[in-house]
Parts: sequence; structure tokens; C-alpha cells
Amino acid sequence: MNIDAAKAALAHLDIDDNPAAVRAKSRDFFWYSPVLKDRLDHVCADFVVMPKNQDEVIEILRACHAHDVPVTVRGSGTGNYAQAMPLAGGCVIHMQNMAEVLRIAPGRVTTQPGLVIRELNRITRADSGQELRMMPSTAGTATIGGFICGGSGGVGSVRWGFLRDYGNILRIRVVTMEAEPRILDFTGEDLARVSHAYGTNGVVTEIEMPLAPAYDWIHIFVTLPDFARASRLAHALALQDGILLKLATVCEAPTAARYFQRFKGQVTDRDNVIALMVAPHSMDGFLSFLSHEPDAKLIYRSDAHDWARDPGPAYEYGWNHTTLRALKVQPEITYLQVRYAGPDFLDKVDQIRARFCDELIQHLEFLRENGVMTAAGLTLVRFSTEERLDEIIRIHEDMGCMIFNPHRYTLEEGGRQTVDERQLEFKRQADPKGLLNPGKMIAWDAPDWDYRRMYDYPGMRR
Amino acid sequence: MNIDAAKAALAHLDIDDNPAAVRAKSRDFFWYSPVLKDRLDHVCADFVVMPKNQDEVIEILRACHAHDVPVTVRGSGTGNYAQAMPLAGGCVIHMQNMAEVLRIAPGRVTTQPGLVIRELNRITRADSGQELRMMPSTAGTATIGGFICGGSGGVGSVRWGFLRDYGNILRIRVVTMEAEPRILDFTGEDLARVSHAYGTNGVVTEIEMPLAPAYDWIHIFVTLPDFARASRLAHALALQDGILLKLATVCEAPTAARYFQRFKGQVTDRDNVIALMVAPHSMDGFLSFLSHEPDAKLIYRSDAHDWARDPGPAYEYGWNHTTLRALKVQPEITYLQVRYAGPDFLDKVDQIRARFCDELIQHLEFLRENGVMTAAGLTLVRFSTEERLDEIIRIHEDMGCMIFNPHRYTLEEGGRQTVDERQLEFKRQADPKGLLNPGKMIAWDAPDWDYRRMYDYPGMRR
Ligand SMILES: Cc1cc2nc3c(=O)[nH]c(=O)nc-3n(C[C@H](O)[C@H](O)[C@H](O)COP(=O)(O)OP(=O)(O)OC[C@H]3O[C@@H](n4cnc5c(N)ncnc54)[C@H](O)[C@@H]3O)c2cc1C
Ligand SMILES: Cc1cc2nc3c(=O)[nH]c(=O)nc-3n(C[C@H](O)[C@H](O)[C@H](O)COP(=O)(O)OP(=O)(O)OC[C@H]3O[C@@H](n4cnc5c(N)ncnc54)[C@H](O)[C@@H]3O)c2cc1C
Repeated sequence: MNIDAAKAALAHLDIDDNPAAVRAKSRDFFWYSPVLKDRLDHVCADFVVMPKNQDEVIEILRACHAHDVPVTVRGSGTGNYAQAMPLAGGCVIHMQNMAEVLRIAPGRVTTQPGLVIRELNRITRADSGQELRMMPSTAGTATIGGFICGGSGGVGSVRWGFLRDYGNILRIRVVTMEAEPRILDFTGEDLARVSHAYGTNGVVTEIEMPLAPAYDWIHIFVTLPDFARASRLAHALALQDGILLKLATVCEAPTAARYFQRFKGQVTDRDNVIALMVAPHSMDGFLSFLSHEPDAKLIYRSDAHDWARDPGPAYEYGWNHTTLRALKVQPEITYLQVRYAGPDFLDKVDQIRARFCDELIQHLEFLRENGVMTAAGLTLVRFSTEERLDEIIRIHEDMGCMIFNPHRYTLEEGGRQTVDERQLEFKRQADPKGLLNPGKMIAWDAPDWDYRRMYDYPGMRR
Repeated sequence: MNIDAAKAALAHLDIDDNPAAVRAKSRDFFWYSPVLKDRLDHVCADFVVMPKNQDEVIEILRACHAHDVPVTVRGSGTGNYAQAMPLAGGCVIHMQNMAEVLRIAPGRVTTQPGLVIRELNRITRADSGQELRMMPSTAGTATIGGFICGGSGGVGSVRWGFLRDYGNILRIRVVTMEAEPRILDFTGEDLARVSHAYGTNGVVTEIEMPLAPAYDWIHIFVTLPDFARASRLAHALALQDGILLKLATVCEAPTAARYFQRFKGQVTDRDNVIALMVAPHSMDGFLSFLSHEPDAKLIYRSDAHDWARDPGPAYEYGWNHTTLRALKVQPEITYLQVRYAGPDFLDKVDQIRARFCDELIQHLEFLRENGVMTAAGLTLVRFSTEERLDEIIRIHEDMGCMIFNPHRYTLEEGGRQTVDERQLEFKRQADPKGLLNPGKMIAWDAPDWDYRRMYDYPGMRR
């Protein structure tokens, strides 16, 4: 690794090696996890470079390849699995200057990766009343490139499923990390080679995404005194094909009373909260449906409310924002990502609730998975020790749930603990020296890893 | 019933009493059913009137109420349950002159009822790239009012469910049949009082409907040699949340070879056909998905094909158009509407296939029912006798299927054989004399009817 030679070769570009700036741009939301915080707090790149276009990306990759400098791409650094952290140091490519929308058509947009998602939505909405099918709850800060490479779904998944599903990404253009970088376009089946690969096998320079209509979504909060009924109401509602939703979140009591500061005076600590985004033309159907549950109380709708302080968009209480709000108030809070499979998934949630008392607080996100309405758990966890956290995970697994562990920094451990052959195979072609975001793909570093303990990347700069 | 007095009172309106014209406008697609054809061929009104606006509708209803003249509303008469046939004679109100679009907004349109659906879609598309969420396959001729009052779903139900689902109709305005007709607006829960009521409890004069984006749908035909695999492929495809479909139809072999004339030379009589409408931006995902089924052959896509004669829109091979094409070639064909409940619905279809040999030909329409992807059967039946038809129905029921009998002219028999209390109760208020489309609501005429045999309306003019 010859940092100086690489920097010299790239001196004509927009480079930043101010230590404070480099340190800031070497970090993401990894501190969400007490486990990752313990392991990665020291991680730091050597320099940051901000390409203005694809040609500059190619130059950077050519130079870093020549001088064996690791390269980690960064969008906005809102990933919370340490996706964007340069474990082996080296170069961080910051994409903020590649933030142009290239083309908008009915049902599709082509964009550069560095654009913040909310801005992308603003542009497509202004152009033709369209917006992305789905976005992370961090849409206000995260980039579309970071979402494609590090995210999985979010606001909109209740209708459209996951980002990885057929049709939810249309095309990804990547530049490879070779002596002479290549520019490759992926569509269809091949998208799986580079999407959600943490930038380990290419730098994304252009993205084509499907669009859906951008309605003036009504943001809604409903309370119920009983969690089991709240989750079933949200489920039943999400199953209504004619009621167009973009979000259906359930936060167990006392999440709202304890952690949602603007809810003060609006909820008690026995209130479970359902957060929703409803299309304006579905409000009537929604209200009719809601009226069947006498215990449900509509406490807020964004188009007509008397709250002294506006709570802001409902989605900033859902997905991982629930956790964010909780840990701001109570720093020992962290979370787990739980998959409750099967048609009786809500019974499973109830069983887990019964098992754990107040060490866990349930948080469900309704979403479609292969056409079936289900919910993912983004369960709040009061963290005590790593051993206990692992035990909580084991108990979930024993009860038949799958955990996507957000306390791990590798693709495999944060996913299904299996090697993605497509990503691995493409990394062999696109990054033969293994310089792209090193340490994030176990399959590359340690093909025989057995997942019994947390992977500890040997190349990590200590 | 004083026909002459009513006609005199309405003489200044657009009235037609030419016998041939009146007879033509007293008939619909009832002849689809050999049973209805046998019972209703003689049915005829006394005169037809074509109101230009709601005030004229009120005048007509006031006059007919005063003179005890039955009133049956007619859209385009494409209903095939004899919905629009004036069993007791009297007045037919033909809505063709009330065909104006009143307002278009994001996600919604307000329209008069007499507009042909394809024209409505053309207007909303031209205005803002929008179209109805769903339409009957008769969209080219049927009116939106007739769809609301006599239809149930169709092209688009694979995404949006049924017309009756919350949110799929926004508002209906009706004029009542009283000494002094009232104008009432229904929304939310109350929509169920008047939608799909065959015009038995009010004349619809204005409708507000939700809209979805109008894409340039690609019409597609795929063949497979095995029916069970074809139905499972269509199911799996329809479950792909990210692949936007508007239609997913499966027609068992030899439907296409035998009945789809433009398919000549493109299919053999062993080919099962899947008909699809795919959004252009979902084509790539669709083709990727399709490539997993090696036996599937894409024989037609509307944006790139070499067929000598264009087959036209895919939806005109689905829903009830499948039956229409079959009975044009083979007049003894009729059909059944089958609901296969449960997650193993495709196994049930296979069992029924095995049970019947070539007396039935399977035809499935995939659709969402309370958020669950399932299929309705619009099974082609080679008609022999009414007794055998009843027996076929019984066998289906014994095998756990529900039949919506298209060989009956009452709301109840064509539905779930139960009284709809909401419609009945509103009829008491809105049509106290029982003059609106008489003979179509058993609950009104014969509350204690036990459904063991076909209802025979005693007031029918013979
Ligand atoms: C409060 C909170 C809520 C969240 N909610 C959600 C949610 O609802 N859904 C969800 O999926 N995620 C969620 N996340 C995770 C994260 O915010 C999103 O995935 C987000 O889209 C990441 O975008 P970013 O620009 O911040 O990417 P970064 O964090 O900067 O990068 C993410 C990954 O993508 C790689 N990458 C970025 N750009 C490129 C590129 N151009 N080429 C190659 N690789 C690249 C990075 O190397 C990194 O591995 C949440 C996180 C927080 C903290
Ligand atoms: C080949 C074929 C395919 C079909 N496919 C479908 C399908 O996919 N989905 C489906 O749902 N149906 C289908 N149908 C049935 C029918 O075509 C549709 O329901 C259609 O929408 C009816 O519209 P129409 O204008 O022809 O109504 P009509 O047949 O004229 O009337 C239907 C009913 O509505 C009442 N009505 C009409 N206008 C008013 C009004 N303004 N106020 C009060 N009552 C009124 C009539 O009295 C009658 O009871 C099909 C029929 C055929 C023959």
C-alpha cells in the first residue's frame, strides 16, 4: 500500500487529508451497535477524494489499484452496519459531487449515485409527479447509491417488497478495480452481483430506478392500548389492497411516550402507536376501515391536527429511526433485525414478547415478501453485555426466527450467514487484488469461516 | 303501471319507443348463459329515455314513481347476468348522454356514469398519465356506471383487489326513486349500500374513482406445455411485488388453439397460455423471472413481435373475454365463476381438472383478495343440460369451492346467496315502491327464499 504515490497521482482531484475531516468521513452509524462501537471506533482512512464524474472515478481506481491502496466508497455514511468504514485504511471515495439526475421517464429515473434520496424524490416529483417506490427512513440524508449498495428496503416496502426483488432496481453501472478499470452495466438477474454488496466489487456510477406516483402522503399516528390488537390492526390494514399505504409501523408501548419527544402529552406509556403513510385518495377507505376497531384512536393526521409541535414525517418514527430516537434518550438501547416467518408471525411476536418482559420492546415494520404481507422486527433491545445479546439472538433463533445481525460488519453476518456466490464471483473479476472495502466479505477473506463467532478481519488496521 | 301517463310526462325528453330499438336496449349479454337465454329472451321494456343530466334523471324518476312505472338503468348492456334487463317492462334509462368527465386530480377522477371506460381512461391519461386501477375486459364498450353497479373487478385486480374493497371506489352519487327524488352522496362504508346493487336502489349520476399511473402496458403471451406448471408460474410471477402487472391470466390448452383465432399458427392445441400486462419498466425483471422456467415460451410481446395479425390487447383474452371467444367458435360453451379458497388453491384446481376431463377447460385470473394472491376460475363449460350444469356446480361445492353462479339474474344467486342487509335497507328508503330494476333482489321480493332452486321472479312480464 503506497498511500503517498496514490495521493500524488490524484493530486489534481478534490482530495482531503485533513485528519479531522478524514476521520469524520471514515465513520458511519456503526455506533448504533455497542458491539461495533467497541471494535471499530479507531477505524480511519488515509485520505478522502471526491470525484466529480465517472472519468475521475476511473482515475482514482486506476491509481489506487496501481499502488495497492484499499478503496471504500461512501455515500452519506448513514449505514449502521459499518458498511462504509475503511477497515484497512486507504482511500475513501466520497460520492457527494456526483449527484445529478440524468433522465426521468414514466416509471423510471436514471441518476448519479451521490444524490440525497429526498432531493431525488423532489426532482422527480417536480418533473412528473413521481418518486422512488421505496426509500430508507434516512432519505433526508442518505444517498441513492448508498441505499442500493448498503440498504435493503424501507418506506414503501409495504407495497413493493425489498430492494433486491425483481424489478425494484432497473440498472446499475459500476466501474471495476483493475489495472484498467472497466465500465459495466447490470440489469435483470445480474443486478444481484453488485446490489447490496457494500461496494466490495465495484464503484457504482449510475443507477436506474423504477418510480411510483408521488402522492401527498398523509402521515398518521394511531394508538391502541393493546399491542397484540395494534399489530393485528396494522396487519389487516396492510392487507387492504385498495388502501394505498407507504408505511405501516407498530411501536410497542412505551416507545412513543418514552422516546418520541414530540408525542409528549399526546400519548401515555400504555399506548402502542401505529405510524402510517396513507395516500390522500385512500383516506376515506382508511378511516372506514379504522372505525371497525373501537379501541383505535387516531391521534394525528398531518393534514389536520392541533399538535403544538409538528412531529414531522411518520417515516422518521419508523424503520431504524425508531431505534435512533430511543437511543438518543436512553443510550443503552440497541436493536435486532428479526424475520418472523410463516403465516402465524404475529403469534410468534406475542410469544417472544411474553418471553422477554421489558428487556425488549417490539417494533414491527409491515412489508411484502414474495407477495405475502408480513412484518420485520426491528426490536429495541436494552443492551447489557455482548453475551446477553448473543443469548437473546439464540433464543429468537430457537423460537424459529431468523436474525439479520446488525452487530456485525460483514455482508454475510448481517445477512443470511451464507456466501453470495454471485457477488463473490464478480469480485474475482472486478477486484482481483481485493482492494474494494476490504474485510466486509468473509467469502473473499476466509472461505471456510463457520460463523460460530464474530468475524474479526485480520487485515484491520489497528 | 301507467306507461302512457309516464311517457306523456316525459315527452319533452329524449324518448325512444321504436319497438326494435326498445327491444335492443332491453337486452344485455344474458345470452351468455343458456339458462338465462331460456328464461329471458322475451324480456322487453315499454320505452327508453336518455337523460342529458341529473335534473332529467330526477324528472324521469319522479314521473315513473307517480305512475308506478318500473325503471331499469342501462349502461352499455354488457353485463352477462341480465343485470340490465327490465323483467317487468316499463322504462329503461339509458345513460349514454351523461358521459362527461368532471374533475381529474392526482389519484382521482370524478365522472358521469355513462362514459365508456376506455374513453375515460383515454381522458385521464391525456390529462395526467393516469387511468382507473381496474376495469372489466369490456372496457372498450362498457360504461363506468355499469361497472360500478354491475361489475366486480377485472383487469387490475391482480394488483388492487376487487371493486368492493375499501378504497377502490371513492364516492357514488345516487338519485332515489321517491315522490320527490333525493340526491345522496355515499363514501366509505356506505358505498356498499349502492355499489354492485344492479341499480335496484338508486340511479347513479356521479362517480369518483381512484386512479393509478397509466403506463404503456406491454401485452404478453407465454406458452407452457403443462397446465399445472403454467398456473404455478403465473402465481409466482403475480407474487413478485416489484414486477408491476395489470393482468395475469392462465388459459388451459386447447383454449388458445381452438378459440383464439389470431393465435393460429402460433400455438398448438397442447399449449397453455399465460396472458399478461406488464409495465414497461418491469419488463426486465419479468424476463429475468421468466427465464427460470425453461419450459415457458414467450410467443408474443406487443412492443416487438412478428405476428401477421396483431392479436390486440391481452385483456381481451382474459376475464370474460375468454368465454366470449370460446362461445363464438363453439356455441355450447358457457362458464362458471369459481372461488378456490385457501393457500392450496392451485392443487384444488388440479383436482377439479382431474375430475372432469374435457367437459371443463380451466381459465384462471390471478387477483388479490384481502392482500393474498389467489386466482378466480372463469372455467369454460361445455353445456349439455341444466341438470348437468347444476351437478357440475355441486361437485365444485363438494370439493370446497364456492360458485358465483352466472346463470342467475338475482343479486343473491349471482353472489354469495345471502341477503345484503345494507343494500336491502337502503332500498327500503330509496325505492319504497320497489320500482327500480324489479326482480333482481330476492331479499326484497321473497325474504324467506331458501335458494334450493332458481328464483323465478313472479312479477316478470311474460
Ligand atoms: C436512523 C437510520 C434509519 C435507517 N433506515 C433504513 C431503512 O429504512 N432502510 C434501509 O435499507 N436502511 C436504513 N438505514 C441504513 C442506511 O441509512 C441506508 O441504507 C442508506 O440508504 C445508506 O445510504 P448512505 O448514502 O448513507 O450510504 P453509506 O452508509 O455511505 O454507504 C452504504 C454502503 O454502500 C456503499 N456505497 C455507497 N455508495 C456507493 C457507490 N456509489 N458505489 C459503491 N458502493 C457504494 C458503501 O461503501 C457502504 O458499504 C438506516 C440507518 C439509520 C441510521
Ligand atoms: C365479454 C365480457 C367480459 C366481461 N368482463 C368483465 C370483467 O372483467 N369484470 C367485470 O366486473 N365484469 C365483466 N363483465 C360484465 C360487464 O361487462 C361489466 O361489469 C361492465 O362494467 C358493465 O358495464 P355496462 O355499462 O355494460 O353495464 P350494464 O350491463 O348496462 O349494467 C350493469 C348493471 O348496472 C346497472 N347500471 C348501469 N348504469 C347504472 C347507473 N348509472 N345507475 C344505476 N345502475 C346502473 C344496470 O341496471 C345493471 O344492473 C364482462 C362481460 C362480458 C360480456
